[in-house]
Amino acid sequence: MSEKVVIIGGGAAGPKTAAKLRRENPNIKIDIYTQEEIISYSACGLPYYIENIIQNPETLIMRTPEDFQKQNIDVHIKQQCLKVNTKDKTVIMQDLISGNKYEVNYTTLVIATGATPVIPNIANINLKNIFTLRTIQDGINIKNKMLESKRAVLLGGGYISVELMEAFVHNGLQVTLIEKNSQILKMFDEDFSQAVADYIIGKNPGQVSIFTNEDVVAFSGNKKGEVTKVITASGKEIETDLVILGTGVRPNTDFLEGSNIKLGIYNSIKVDKTLKTSIQGVYAVGDCTDNYNLVTNRYTWVPMGSTANKEGRCAAINIAGGSCFFDGILNSTITKYFDLTISIIGISYKEAQELGFQPEYAIVTKRDKAGYMPNTGTITLKLIADRNTQTILGIQGIGDGEVNQRINTVIPAILGKTKLETFMNLDLPYSPPYSPAIDPVLNAAQIVYHKING
Amino acid sequence: MSEKVVIIGGGAAGPKTAAKLRRENPNIKIDIYTQEEIISYSACGLPYYIENIIQNPETLIMRTPEDFQKQNIDVHIKQQCLKVNTKDKTVIMQDLISGNKYEVNYTTLVIATGATPVIPNIANINLKNIFTLRTIQDGINIKNKMLESKRAVLLGGGYISVELMEAFVHNGLQVTLIEKNSQILKMFDEDFSQAVADYIIGKNPGQVSIFTNEDVVAFSGNKKGEVTKVITASGKEIETDLVILGTGVRPNTDFLEGSNIKLGIYNSIKVDKTLKTSIQGVYAVGDCTDNYNLVTNRYTWVPMGSTANKEGRCAAINIAGGSCFFDGILNSTITKYFDLTISIIGISYKEAQELGFQPEYAIVTKRDKAGYMPNTGTITLKLIADRNTQTILGIQGIGDGEVNQRINTVIPAILGKTKLETFMNLDLPYSPPYSPAIDPVLNAAQIVYHKING
Repeated sequence: MSEKVVIIGGGAAGPKTAAKLRRENPNIKIDIYTQEEIISYSACGLPYYIENIIQNPETLIMRTPEDFQKQNIDVHIKQQCLKVNTKDKTVIMQDLISGNKYEVNYTTLVIATGATPVIPNIANINLKNIFTLRTIQDGINIKNKMLESKRAVLLGGGYISVELMEAFVHNGLQVTLIEKNSQILKMFDEDFSQAVADYIIGKNPGQVSIFTNEDVVAFSGNKKGEVTKVITASGKEIETDLVILGTGVRPNTDFLEGSNIKLGIYNSIKVDKTLKTSIQGVYAVGDCTDNYNLVTNRYTWVPMGSTANKEGRCAAINIAGGSCFFDGILNSTITKYFDLTISIIGISYKEAQELGFQPEYAIVTKRDKAGYMPNTGTITLKLIADRNTQTILGIQGIGDGEVNQRINTVIPAILGKTKLETFMNLDLPYSPPYSPAIDPVLNAAQIVYHKING
Repeated sequence: MSEKVVIIGGGAAGPKTAAKLRRENPNIKIDIYTQEEIISYSACGLPYYIENIIQNPETLIMRTPEDFQKQNIDVHIKQQCLKVNTKDKTVIMQDLISGNKYEVNYTTLVIATGATPVIPNIANINLKNIFTLRTIQDGINIKNKMLESKRAVLLGGGYISVELMEAFVHNGLQVTLIEKNSQILKMFDEDFSQAVADYIIGKNPGQVSIFTNEDVVAFSGNKKGEVTKVITASGKEIETDLVILGTGVRPNTDFLEGSNIKLGIYNSIKVDKTLKTSIQGVYAVGDCTDNYNLVTNRYTWVPMGSTANKEGRCAAINIAGGSCFFDGILNSTITKYFDLTISIIGISYKEAQELGFQPEYAIVTKRDKAGYMPNTGTITLKLIADRNTQTILGIQGIGDGEVNQRINTVIPAILGKTKLETFMNLDLPYSPPYSPAIDPVLNAAQIVYHKING
């Protein structure tokens, strides 16, 4: 049989693999199968479509099935993978329109099935206008409902809830966020999480509520079967027109049961640095794979669009006979709430303690440019370093100033285990419109160094 | 004799040394001597004061002599150092008002005399309204003249000329820049230099001229002794109301003749990583010192406000008995011309070739955010790597988008000699308002890697 690459999944990682593989090899046969109608889109852009910063959802689509056809890549929409037989090198597919099942053979299989929202076990969860956000169709449904709504409730205090809170507030809704844990954005230390919550509340007083340590026990609805109320364990009854379940995601790997493809943490697919699974000829990329954390040296699962794209690219190079290694991640994330940038890289102080490091930290709040320049912003950085190795373990940054520039400076230093002593005198380019003479991220490093070494 | 630290120079490095030393040691006697009236100011902010983005020059002053007095640091203004006797541990000072000379003894001497503009040997250079820009008084003089002028000529195509060109254009002047070399911004490769020149010309067509390969041979003036014309070797006669000499600076070290303090490249003061000079008990910091280039492993001289501050801090720690090492620099610089950010780190492709590296490069032009987001900018990056070591030697970046964030990402990677293979999959935080899914700087690294490794 001539070489045939079958890709299961049409979000970001699968199409990226296909497109890169075609550039590497003009002749190899490539087929993409996806459950959805739309392929190759940026799910990360959906909150901004809902907010109405982006008007047309089609702008989120990178390539259409027709675009792929022009590259001689066949896209099969509305097709679900039911089973993988790694011995026969076949997959059992089902046409979601006709219901027909059929077999497809492959020489190389790429699993890129992504992740699915977790639906919590709450009474009346099937009422109308209770949404999850994952696909473009989800985005369209949420936006349509939002435009006729006055109130929204968000379950869960992760990034997606913060981003949708901005969208809803921007569109005039009264918004309530309910988080069962003691803080929103749980990857952050409590002080930074609290600062973000304070900013959110303070920005639109009276329009936004955040309840932590609060469990939702039931929804209630009207005669049309639409959600009208969210009921919490502490007895709160919150009237609403729509609910978003931002209560986490899980890897889409149930169909792999019995396939001998080894799963890892949280049932994500175990992959090596070349994106190979435990079975010869089977790769996995994107949100369905596990990730190696280069700070903790442990496997983790952090589904991210950027990782999906890098993994897809890397897998394609390897499938084409080249050599690409994806070493791992640093749990790098960033988002914003209106003007406030919110970012964390590596591990928090709390996590560093839990993992047995001997962490020390510094918090600095500074202008992002020379103080005498107009239009400066403020940034607050928390730099965490290990007392033993004197290297950086992580950084948290928030502010209406240029946070990203500082955060990014730290990333290769975490990876390269640059000593604090070296990092704190790093030659960052200086000019008054861009930074103070000594950059805030270097101030933070100087303070941590001083705390450790006296 | 009890310990007495004498600091010569009041720009950035000297006052920084004094302030940090006082924090480290509350009792040690500290005296600062400066030729100027104003001390502890940001010379880098002067172009923005002239542009009138900053109205009051006092906002550029970090600390006044009175502020220092409160910290028990004595500031002596209008005092020039004529000679250093390292055997006696004395300096000969001259009061610039009375003309009186006197001797001051020290236990530790810190030389922070900065740099002075180079005055080119051109006929009639002493005409009025021919300026250099170094001190606050220079800035005030230039601004006052600019406000009554219609035309300006800038000699030299370095950062200061680009920044003053923005200032003058913003204030409605007709501006001509004359550069004797074949390109402006000579530390950049020719392609990037040309792109900046094209941007400058294109932004205000008809208002700005740039002449390269052009030598100024004379100025001519009116009866009042004011400059009215700039005459070039090729026979151009350019009418003007003011001239700026942006023709370089040299370290202010003439007074060290006969002192046995060893000078290095371009007569800058040779210092080790602890900022000690060749003579026991004598430190030097800021624009008057040489710099170790961590990419080329050669000594160089790159006077920068950020380096001055870091050196001042580091020297103070060492004088106070602590331990601080300033390893060196990466020639990191950044500026802007209106919306265009202009930055270079490390070495250019041209310089890499000259130094015997085997350089390869990639140029990418990309949006700075996800393409579907509003208000994206464009950035163009040129990443230079060494074929032998597969490490990054430098990056040049220009654009109206977020350049600094990418530039800064590369800096610890240059320093840490991170392999391209590792760098190109770096886990940069991704969200549509901050970057595309694969950041342009990683695209650039992927392309260079591919060019080197096939």
